[in-house]
Amino acid sequence: MKMTHAHPLSEDRLFPPEPSVRGIARRLYAEVRSLPIVSPHGHTDPAWFAENKPFADPSSLLVIPDHYIYRMLYSQGVPLESLGVPRVDGAPVEQDARKIWRLLARNWHLFRGTPSRMWLTHALSEVFGVDERLTPESADRMYDRIADCLHRPEFFPRALFEQFNIEVLATTESPLDGLLHHRALRQSGWRGRVITAFRPDPVVDPEYEGFAANVAKLGELTGEDTQTWPGYLQALASRRRFFASLGATSTDHGHASAATFDLPRLECEALFRAALRADASPAQAERFRGQMLTEMARMSVDDGLVMQIHPGSCRNHNPTIFARFGRDKGADIPTPTEYVRALKPLLDRFGNDPRLSLIVFTLDETTYSRELAPLAGHYPALKLGPAWWFFDSPEGMRRYREQVSETAGFYNTVGFNDDTRAFLSIPARHDVARRVDCAFLARWVAEHRLEEDEAAELAVDLAYSLARRAYKLEPTP
Amino acid sequence: MKMTHAHPLSEDRLFPPEPSVRGIARRLYAEVRSLPIVSPHGHTDPAWFAENKPFADPSSLLVIPDHYIYRMLYSQGVPLESLGVPRVDGAPVEQDARKIWRLLARNWHLFRGTPSRMWLTHALSEVFGVDERLTPESADRMYDRIADCLHRPEFFPRALFEQFNIEVLATTESPLDGLLHHRALRQSGWRGRVITAFRPDPVVDPEYEGFAANVAKLGELTGEDTQTWPGYLQALASRRRFFASLGATSTDHGHASAATFDLPRLECEALFRAALRADASPAQAERFRGQMLTEMARMSVDDGLVMQIHPGSCRNHNPTIFARFGRDKGADIPTPTEYVRALKPLLDRFGNDPRLSLIVFTLDETTYSRELAPLAGHYPALKLGPAWWFFDSPEGMRRYREQVSETAGFYNTVGFNDDTRAFLSIPARHDVARRVDCAFLARWVAEHRLEEDEAAELAVDLAYSLARRAYKLEPTP
Amino acid sequence: MKMTHAHPLSEDRLFPPEPSVRGIARRLYAEVRSLPIVSPHGHTDPAWFAENKPFADPSSLLVIPDHYIYRMLYSQGVPLESLGVPRVDGAPVEQDARKIWRLLARNWHLFRGTPSRMWLTHALSEVFGVDERLTPESADRMYDRIADCLHRPEFFPRALFEQFNIEVLATTESPLDGLLHHRALRQSGWRGRVITAFRPDPVVDPEYEGFAANVAKLGELTGEDTQTWPGYLQALASRRRFFASLGATSTDHGHASAATFDLPRLECEALFRAALRADASPAQAERFRGQMLTEMARMSVDDGLVMQIHPGSCRNHNPTIFARFGRDKGADIPTPTEYVRALKPLLDRFGNDPRLSLIVFTLDETTYSRELAPLAGHYPALKLGPAWWFFDSPEGMRRYREQVSETAGFYNTVGFNDDTRAFLSIPARHDVARRVDCAFLARWVAEHRLEEDEAAELAVDLAYSLARRAYKLEPTP
Repeated sequence: MKMTHAHPLSEDRLFPPEPSVRGIARRLYAEVRSLPIVSPHGHTDPAWFAENKPFADPSSLLVIPDHYIYRMLYSQGVPLESLGVPRVDGAPVEQDARKIWRLLARNWHLFRGTPSRMWLTHALSEVFGVDERLTPESADRMYDRIADCLHRPEFFPRALFEQFNIEVLATTESPLDGLLHHRALRQSGWRGRVITAFRPDPVVDPEYEGFAANVAKLGELTGEDTQTWPGYLQALASRRRFFASLGATSTDHGHASAATFDLPRLECEALFRAALRADASPAQAERFRGQMLTEMARMSVDDGLVMQIHPGSCRNHNPTIFARFGRDKGADIPTPTEYVRALKPLLDRFGNDPRLSLIVFTLDETTYSRELAPLAGHYPALKLGPAWWFFDSPEGMRRYREQVSETAGFYNTVGFNDDTRAFLSIPARHDVARRVDCAFLARWVAEHRLEEDEAAELAVDLAYSLARRAYKLEPTP
Repeated sequence: MKMTHAHPLSEDRLFPPEPSVRGIARRLYAEVRSLPIVSPHGHTDPAWFAENKPFADPSSLLVIPDHYIYRMLYSQGVPLESLGVPRVDGAPVEQDARKIWRLLARNWHLFRGTPSRMWLTHALSEVFGVDERLTPESADRMYDRIADCLHRPEFFPRALFEQFNIEVLATTESPLDGLLHHRALRQSGWRGRVITAFRPDPVVDPEYEGFAANVAKLGELTGEDTQTWPGYLQALASRRRFFASLGATSTDHGHASAATFDLPRLECEALFRAALRADASPAQAERFRGQMLTEMARMSVDDGLVMQIHPGSCRNHNPTIFARFGRDKGADIPTPTEYVRALKPLLDRFGNDPRLSLIVFTLDETTYSRELAPLAGHYPALKLGPAWWFFDSPEGMRRYREQVSETAGFYNTVGFNDDTRAFLSIPARHDVARRVDCAFLARWVAEHRLEEDEAAELAVDLAYSLARRAYKLEPTP
Repeated sequence: MKMTHAHPLSEDRLFPPEPSVRGIARRLYAEVRSLPIVSPHGHTDPAWFAENKPFADPSSLLVIPDHYIYRMLYSQGVPLESLGVPRVDGAPVEQDARKIWRLLARNWHLFRGTPSRMWLTHALSEVFGVDERLTPESADRMYDRIADCLHRPEFFPRALFEQFNIEVLATTESPLDGLLHHRALRQSGWRGRVITAFRPDPVVDPEYEGFAANVAKLGELTGEDTQTWPGYLQALASRRRFFASLGATSTDHGHASAATFDLPRLECEALFRAALRADASPAQAERFRGQMLTEMARMSVDDGLVMQIHPGSCRNHNPTIFARFGRDKGADIPTPTEYVRALKPLLDRFGNDPRLSLIVFTLDETTYSRELAPLAGHYPALKLGPAWWFFDSPEGMRRYREQVSETAGFYNTVGFNDDTRAFLSIPARHDVARRVDCAFLARWVAEHRLEEDEAAELAVDLAYSLARRAYKLEPTP
């Protein structure tokens, strides 16, 4: 077989091969390819934009912080130390960024067909103009090119933000965060819109490290008596207002399950006391977290913050990795997740309330057609977040549309979230989502299930308008 | 992009776009498009055919009774009152049918890509000759056209039944129903075949509203002493015979789970007493329902009625909607459903008995390949019902065939059920099923997994013959 | 419609119909079609190769031992007795092989679209040169042709093994097996590589028939005191070494769940004593089996045997069939299977150890994307077995690749297993897998997600190299 090294970024990538369907997909994509990026949920570092310092080197930008990348290398026997991932105990890890880059290059075949490869290839080509394949032979050449770019002003964070045509980017912070970078951004005069989101896990999950201390700190920050249940709730409401004042339009909740509860006040107080004493049983902790989701929904009805639930991950599954490297190191594994009974207490109370907007995500694809689409296709307050995390991928997005759309329609979904720490992957991820959605719509047009003008309108909605609307990001007039 | 408003009902709708595969699909569909409709399970109102009165207006025919339609509108904030859905308390709701129709028109984009849109478009075009798109601008024109038709004799229920080429249509009634309309139909001289089916939920589910009173009424209707376990069973057997005398060939069971039990007589009697006293615990109610499935199977072995199980729906999930509008208002949500252990007691006893025909449905698609196809591919008594409810859709049917056929084959499935209250959607639903099955078969022919003559035979079986055979609807010679 | 009886084995079977994608698939397949067969896991009978006697007749070769075939016939009412399946009680069953063959022919339509039909058609054509369709009319002609072949030396087991181009074939034996055939094979001078694999279910599962007696026999075979926990473990280690000395490179474990435990020694000893006394509760039996998986992993770290887990089958679901015909008669039904928590005790201890290679299979496809791909994409010790049993089929393999590859990549999978008792289906099964993988890769190439030279390398890896590597079957230098 002759070797074909095509340009890595075909104009037709992710489009269906059949010529007539591809033609429709191209026309739909032409409508959306240049739309601004709305990124309503993610984990980039606001310091990048507040400080606008250059990124250090290719590996610390593209490898060391990306658990999608190093989990795959680790699964094939590459030690995390050799990839420069910092150890909790401060033990030495690889410091030579070029060596790390070469290690990636030697193992690049492991990523064939993965989203990581697609995103990195896109970033290399579109941001750095590097169009050759990453191989041991090309590794140094590519490294030098990227390293050279990173020190030029047009590759500083704010310049990239503008080049990426980002209309708005949300980060995610704990209620205990002082939001110094967000405050600095507001005062900087820079016009890029970077906002925060309220992620209260450290102060609402009794099993979170340092829960009681966190709640005490919450009291200090807000001047409320967080040793009492009413004071605690007031402190949370107050902190939400503070986040909103720095642009937040949403909250985010990452529990192990989707359980919600609507308990009598006496039980809430008892659970809260047990949690503060750090002797809540696992079942009590679960009830407390579930109660707090309902409390958060109640506060959302008051203050208008959109509520996101990201459940179903068994965090830190590998105790060896957790002890050595800490959280978020690619060892979080999805588990079966139930929604119909879990969400009922919250929905019983607020599911019909138009002031609540509850966006639900899942890592259990079996719930798309069985639970989530029927729920979203009925409750006014509930909408479906996009294909998430492991499913932020072409096949994952396709399954999502195929399994959700017939029951929930398109307008009970909220557009795309990139949900990433990897800044340079943002344009790539949005581009993949736009292409996959256009490919999906093109098939339905070709099968005469939609007309093309409707598909074009939908393509714009899915790429741009729905996210703005669902997350209340339309510019206030 | 130029606007293209093609005819809404392309001749090639739902066929694969690739020309050679589409060609096969067209040829297969030509074999089945004109076959009579066999509708062995559904929820149309026998009064329509017994009385043959004209339908009142477009909205009360096409919107107000269709929970697929109004659940979607409700999910986007449209109150059910404004759609004319009657309230339990008799409070006023919208009475102006034209206003309701306009409200649908304004929100028609919500249905893009849904089966509801496909079915309604089909009915508008094929029944009323309306080929334009529903928009706020066209709404009144379409309304007038339909309203005008409805008062002409060729649009009366019996005329439509004949025009739809329905060979047989089954409705579903409670054992407490006197079957007056079915009796009137038998005596009317009209040749349309409309039969009943036996749905005993109100008298076999201890948690059904008014269970004890229902059982008492069953005693009155049959002259059996339904306060004793043997009398109760005899009353059920008697009522089954009555239903069969009015054409019923099947029973239907809609429990929350697929649990079956085969309990000792003493426990059956104790559960029955607890149920009559209305103090069965949830676990006891579950055991009683499961026992009754096994009793029904035993009766089917005797009287030959085909047995259907439709499990897995969490009914009336939204208490606000239930209190205000009652049952069947689009707030039933599927739940995870287990079959392998649940059906074992019944199958242990009757699974190898060729006199039993047990047709199993699911709202949990994960069970297709994992549980149901392996069960149907082994037990002589068990067959699989078609893709049901939320999955009565092109993607749903495709997943069903892809996940079932390799293990269960085609001949352990039972053809198509429309399972609808929406009379005008029946031809549309059968047409969608025929097209999707032909598209599926065409792909397998194109991939050389079937030969075309076999696929043509299968297409006829799936569209027509299997349903007649599985539900014992072949005309007696 | 005109009847088309094409040659049953199109050169393009299982390839995508779109011409450009089909072209890519053809080119990829050309790279792999002639590669040797590596069959690292299966259930063929080593006596065939040790004794090299001719197969008796078409039905006892192709029908009577194949539960895929007779389960389908049974599901449609064909008694197993009439297919010659032997009864436990020795009662008479059909002995006329030709009659059995005719019964298959009369029901051949039931297999439309099933893998069984594909495999049998392949074997008939490629092995016996029979290219017509099996029908009542052709049945006798085909029977005679095959019967005639079977007595010619080129159809004896060893000759077929060589003709099939099998590089290595693993069978599966109990620790209580003396491996006489494997020893005979070693001494025979024949160059075919047939090896054993260690399947200890009879001596590690307290619920296995005759567990205590089996453990006693294990003691006799090894000279260890298997009435004590340490002696029992030493006996197992000793027996593993014996298997390895006859070529085994792997162990295999077929528990009902994937549960593993890592219990204190005192509890292990207590469970072992209860198991020997045959009074372990179901929960204790489950804990013991789970502990034994961890013990087996520990031994694998020592002796290098690759460890396979095949969980999730509810064995012998039909008690009538079990009583009459015994185990493995097509009445095993998959059940929901959980891996994330179940495997944690084993992975906590050995998941990061590069000396362990743990290959996990599933009958619950929902775990591909939710649990197994994320686990395999993280843990160095864990790899995913191919689509198994009911999913060893074109649609099953396609779903596997679509749901696994984006998260686990290709290199955390282990290539293809045929896992069959049906010797003549082995080339057919490998050919199907190669075609389906090439079709899958071709789509990704056509969608510009892989370049064609990479896909060609992957095709060879998936068809050949990965299985050799994962099962340590590369020839020792």
